[in-house]
Amino acid sequence: MTSISIRNAILNGEMTNIQIEDHLITEIGKAGEADRIINARKRIVMPGLVNTHTHAAMALLRGYADDMELQPWLEKKIWPMEKHLKPEHNYWGTRLACLEMIKSGTVAFNDMYINMEEAARAVDDAGIRAVIGYGFVDMFNEEKREAEIKGTKKLVKHINDMKSPRIRPSVAPHAIYTVSDEGLQWCASYARENELLLHMHVSETEKENNDCIEQRDTTPVCHLDELGFLGPDLISAHSVWLDDEEIGIYAKKGVKVSYNPVSNMKLGVARAMPYVDMRRVGMEPTLGTDGCASNNNLDMFESMKIAALLQKYKAHPTVLPHHENILMTTLWGAKALRLPTGEVAVGKEADLILVDTQRADMTPLHNPGSNIVYSTNGSAVSTVICRGRLLMEERKVKGEDIVLKKAAEAASSLAKAVREEER
Amino acid sequence: MTSISIRNAILNGEMTNIQIEDHLITEIGKAGEADRIINARKRIVMPGLVNTHTHAAMALLRGYADDMELQPWLEKKIWPMEKHLKPEHNYWGTRLACLEMIKSGTVAFNDMYINMEEAARAVDDAGIRAVIGYGFVDMFNEEKREAEIKGTKKLVKHINDMKSPRIRPSVAPHAIYTVSDEGLQWCASYARENELLLHMHVSETEKENNDCIEQRDTTPVCHLDELGFLGPDLISAHSVWLDDEEIGIYAKKGVKVSYNPVSNMKLGVARAMPYVDMRRVGMEPTLGTDGCASNNNLDMFESMKIAALLQKYKAHPTVLPHHENILMTTLWGAKALRLPTGEVAVGKEADLILVDTQRADMTPLHNPGSNIVYSTNGSAVSTVICRGRLLMEERKVKGEDIVLKKAAEAASSLAKAVREEER
Repeated sequence: MTSISIRNAILNGEMTNIQIEDHLITEIGKAGEADRIINARKRIVMPGLVNTHTHAAMALLRGYADDMELQPWLEKKIWPMEKHLKPEHNYWGTRLACLEMIKSGTVAFNDMYINMEEAARAVDDAGIRAVIGYGFVDMFNEEKREAEIKGTKKLVKHINDMKSPRIRPSVAPHAIYTVSDEGLQWCASYARENELLLHMHVSETEKENNDCIEQRDTTPVCHLDELGFLGPDLISAHSVWLDDEEIGIYAKKGVKVSYNPVSNMKLGVARAMPYVDMRRVGMEPTLGTDGCASNNNLDMFESMKIAALLQKYKAHPTVLPHHENILMTTLWGAKALRLPTGEVAVGKEADLILVDTQRADMTPLHNPGSNIVYSTNGSAVSTVICRGRLLMEERKVKGEDIVLKKAAEAASSLAKAVREEER
Repeated sequence: MTSISIRNAILNGEMTNIQIEDHLITEIGKAGEADRIINARKRIVMPGLVNTHTHAAMALLRGYADDMELQPWLEKKIWPMEKHLKPEHNYWGTRLACLEMIKSGTVAFNDMYINMEEAARAVDDAGIRAVIGYGFVDMFNEEKREAEIKGTKKLVKHINDMKSPRIRPSVAPHAIYTVSDEGLQWCASYARENELLLHMHVSETEKENNDCIEQRDTTPVCHLDELGFLGPDLISAHSVWLDDEEIGIYAKKGVKVSYNPVSNMKLGVARAMPYVDMRRVGMEPTLGTDGCASNNNLDMFESMKIAALLQKYKAHPTVLPHHENILMTTLWGAKALRLPTGEVAVGKEADLILVDTQRADMTPLHNPGSNIVYSTNGSAVSTVICRGRLLMEERKVKGEDIVLKKAAEAASSLAKAVREEER
C-alpha cells in the first residue's frame, strides 16, 4: 500500500492539499506524510476525464482515410483494413490509445470493438480503467447470432477471470441496423442477469433513423423500447437524431447518452445531439471521442471545447457552459459507467489529474474552468493518477517509446496487408 | 548573417534537408554547412502558420467572460474592461499572444485593436511578423472621425519609422455599424495612396446584415462596393452572412476573407462562412482565430480542425479537405497579407516550423497532412523559425517566464480596475 501527498494544488480556485492512501482519496485540506510528495503549486487538480464512447484500437487507423462520405469511407477504406486486424494489432492499437488518453488526462473509457481480450490486456498494462464490450454484429443471421453470443460470453468470462479492479466487461450490440431484434433482446437479458452495462450506437445518422421508420414504422428509440432494451444500464452513443418523444422515453428509462461532437461533425452527420432538450428533462449527458478513424484523436479537452461550440452554434451562446461541460466529462461520465470516480472528494477513488497553469494558453487565470474548456488542450496535463497509481509525471509515461514504435509497426503491417490484397 | 541547416526533415512525405542563409531559404535537398545544424529527424517541416484576424492584446481577457449572449457579453464584460486598457497592458497582452502563437507554430498575424504602437513594439521584441492596424471607430461623429484619422496616420508613421522588415501597418476601420461612410472612404483612399492593406469586420452577425438592409436597403458588401471600398487589399474578417451576389462581388474585386470558425461558433453567430460558394468562384479563403476573449486561444492547429468540422457539418464531409486547410493556413494567408512566405521553397523567406511525429497523437503517420489538421494541436510544434531566426527550440522560447508573469500581472490589474470602478 502506497500513499501520495499532493501539495498546494488549485481546487475550485483555492490552494489545498490532497492525501491519497492506496487507491482512495482520504483527506482534502491538511498536508499529510506520504511515500510520494507531489508539488502541485500553480497546477489545477481535477478528476481524471471519462470518455464514454470509443473504439480504442482504431488508433491504428488514425489518418488512414479522411474527407470522404460515410459509406465509401467505411466500404472502401475502414472495413478493408479492419479485415486484417489480428489480436496483436488490437493490443498495440489499444496501448497507443491508452497512451494518448493518459497524455491528455483521460483515465477511463467505454470501448467497443473486436479482439477485446487483447484490448483488456492492453488496458491492464497501461494502468487505466475501461468498460470493454465485444462488438456484437449478427447481421440478422441466426448462425452468426450464436457465434456473437458465444463471443460475448467468452469475453465476459475472460474479463471476470482477470479480476482487475479497473476493467469491467459490457454487452455491446453494434446498432439496430446490424443486430436482429432477437440479438438485441438476448443482449439486454444477458446484461441484466449479469449486472453489466449495455453499450450501443443509437440514432447516429439520418439514414439510420429514416430506415428504421420506413422498415418498422417507428423511431429507433421507440423500437428499442418495445423490445424492452432500454434502461439505466444503457450507454447510447451518438443519439443525434432523437425527437422529443424519444428523449422523453430516454429520460423516463434513465438511459445514458454519449455525445460525440467531433466524430458527428467530421462524418457529416449534419445534426447536433439535442443537448438542450435532454437537459430540460433532467438527463446528464456524457462525452465521447468515438474512434480515431473519425475524430482523429482521443483528447477530451478538445472534445469538451467542440462539444460546447457545436451546441452554441446550433442553439445559443449560453448553452453548455464550462462548469457543466466539466461535469459531463467527469462526474456524469463516471456515473454512467458506474465508476466510483469523477469527483475530487474524500472516499472517492484516486483518479486525479494535474493541469499546468504556467503556459501561455492558461494565462491569465481569470477563470480556471473556462481555461480548461476553451483555452487549452490535453497537452496541459502534467500528472495523471489512476486508482492511486502515478501513470504520468511531468508528461513522462513509462514505456512510451516502445508503445509508439510497436503501434507504428502494427499500423504499417495493416496498411501493407491492404496494399497486398489490392494488388 | 547567420545560416541554419535543417537535416532530415519530412517534407511532403519525403526526407530532405533545408538550407537557410540569413532570412531566406536557399536550398532544399542537399545538406549544407551552417552556423546552426538542426536535427529534424522524424519531424515534419512546414511553413509557419498565418493568422489573418485577431486582436492580440485581448489575450489578457482570456476566460474573463464566456457562455454569454453577444450584446451583454460586450456591454457588461468586455467594454468595461477594455476601458481600463493602458499601453503597458497592450504591450504585455501582445507579448503573451505572440508567445502563444510561437508555441503553436504561428509566425505572422493580422492585428486590429488600440494602443497599437505598443503592439508593434511587442511584435518586434517577440520576433514574429504582423500587420498592425489601429481600430478606426468614428461612431458617425465628425469630430471623432478627425481623431481616428489622426490616430491612423500616427500609427502608420510610427510603424514606418520602426523600419522593421517584419512589421507593417494597415488601415483598420472596425465595421460598417461603427464607422461612417466618410470614414470608410477616407480609410480606403488613405490605404491606397500609401499601398497599405485594409482590415475590417464584415458581415459577422445576422443583426449586422439585417440592420444594413433595413437602413440602407442593401447588403453590407453591396454597400461597401458602392462606396468604392472593395479591392484586393481588403482582408474581410468573418464574412459569414454573405449571399451569392456578395460572394460574386468579392470574387470580382479580389477581396480576401478571413474565416474565424471558433469565434463564430462560440458567440453563437449561427451560420458558417459560405466556404464552398467562395471556392466555387475561385476565392482562396484564409484562417483567423479572432481575439482570445471569443476563442479563447490562438492555436491555428485547433482552428484548422474546427474550420473543417464546421464546413463538413454544414455542407458535406468531403468539403475543406486537409491539404486545402493547410494551404488556407499558410500560402493563402501569406498571399492575403502580402508576405513573401507561406511555402517551403527556395527564395522564400525562412518562416518554418518543425512538427514532432514522435507523439501518441501523431502515431501512426499514414498521412502527415491529416495528422496535422485532425489529430494534433499546436503543442506538437517543436521548433519555430521566423525570417531565419530561431524563436523556439525544443519548445523553449527565450524570456517565456517573464512574459507569463508580466501578462498575468497586467490581467490582474485590469480585473482590479474593473472591480474598483464597480464598487
